[in-house]
Amino acid sequence: MRNILLTIEYDGTNYHGWQRQKNAVSIQQLIEKAIEKITGSKANLIGSGRTDSGVHALAQRANFKTEARIPAERIPFALNSCLPPDIRITGAVEVAHDFHARYDAIGKKYRYRIYNSEIPSAIHRNYSCFIPERLDIDRMKEASMYILGSRDFSSFCGSGSFAKSRVRNVELLEIEKKGKFIDIIIRADGFLYNMVRIIAGTLVEVGKGSMPPHHVRDILDKRDRRFAGPTLPPQGLFLEEVYYREDS
Amino acid sequence: MRNILLTIEYDGTNYHGWQRQKNAVSIQQLIEKAIEKITGSKANLIGSGRTDSGVHALAQRANFKTEARIPAERIPFALNSCLPPDIRITGAVEVAHDFHARYDAIGKKYRYRIYNSEIPSAIHRNYSCFIPERLDIDRMKEASMYILGSRDFSSFCGSGSFAKSRVRNVELLEIEKKGKFIDIIIRADGFLYNMVRIIAGTLVEVGKGSMPPHHVRDILDKRDRRFAGPTLPPQGLFLEEVYYREDS
Repeated sequence: MRNILLTIEYDGTNYHGWQRQKNAVSIQQLIEKAIEKITGSKANLIGSGRTDSGVHALAQRANFKTEARIPAERIPFALNSCLPPDIRITGAVEVAHDFHARYDAIGKKYRYRIYNSEIPSAIHRNYSCFIPERLDIDRMKEASMYILGSRDFSSFCGSGSFAKSRVRNVELLEIEKKGKFIDIIIRADGFLYNMVRIIAGTLVEVGKGSMPPHHVRDILDKRDRRFAGPTLPPQGLFLEEVYYREDS
Repeated sequence: MRNILLTIEYDGTNYHGWQRQKNAVSIQQLIEKAIEKITGSKANLIGSGRTDSGVHALAQRANFKTEARIPAERIPFALNSCLPPDIRITGAVEVAHDFHARYDAIGKKYRYRIYNSEIPSAIHRNYSCFIPERLDIDRMKEASMYILGSRDFSSFCGSGSFAKSRVRNVELLEIEKKGKFIDIIIRADGFLYNMVRIIAGTLVEVGKGSMPPHHVRDILDKRDRRFAGPTLPPQGLFLEEVYYREDS
């Protein structure tokens, strides 16, 4: 059996998230159907992780096994011809037999995009989170320093998580302002359920002036979800990159 | 009667263009309905110009007359509460009684956005034009020089135009590359029907290598639509700004 690793871009607006489920259209399911169409046999597509309803991906990664002989470089074109335009396969490579898109991932990068203006945007409404209050970027940057590093992120974990350990290593956390957009870019070795959206919600509270930057340190110490800020909505979230060891 | 000038952002994806029409939903019509709802009387909304189905606007301008006493700065919030989220009123000011959004416009700026990659984008599909062939930006920039200035743009005018004179003054034409995007930014004292989309289509032909840059000069001389490149699709086009004299 060949093992194929896909790179996938999707607009999550019209889907019930990545994961296959009954009575709702998911991205995983549509790609599995497309694989079955081009290979002629049932496919089990393993994503690097789930994304919730409304969340977007620039480069989700997922692998599947197949007997089909279609060359890897032809796979994106073949699958795209069977997929709706809001899901695009942007790459495909053959990987080792034991490669697993979830277990072998050594890190991920997300972007959370805020549209900070008095009036919401018509064009960016599905690709950003509208925050009308003026946000103080310098305060948000100061608060973000407490999140960097290897820490127990229990306070930034949504209910419904089955993670054994809640320690994650946040390797990068940048806040960029471009016009009315404020982007929070975060890279870690792994993420807990809703972790990016809760971190973004907490940084927004700091930016509004509702809590001082150093409170973020206290929130981490509490290891209790109730002390952190709200979970921001899904449409601002983009999965930008999934990292694997070069030799995998 | 007070005369109110609106600034409007819209995502044109789901509309049959700006202009009011029978049996199809237009942006003008929805805003007129919203004005009638908040003022209690019929409104005639005069846009700076039409935009076609699928074309977007960051700052379309339009004026209407009303007896209503609602303060101008409250109008965006009032109208937005009666409008779908893909149409947003971002500003409102009171202007002189004889101000006319179309007749008084002294110029406009458009952006035409190309997504230049082997595989189309899922996320940007409705906000850019997908061109898979590699485009040579330097050739496109060279060709754009022939378009600058006051010229007869008959070759770049779509059929269905009723313009008496086809002379327009292109004051700015910039080509910007940012990652996979190539943006053509064009400012002129006025535009003929489909002018930006035909200029973009012609510059793309030059970028692909299908015609040398100096052919653009010959195309202008012909004053015949058949010699220019194709009309690119509407979803790449954004009306970015409408200019008025400061004292109007």
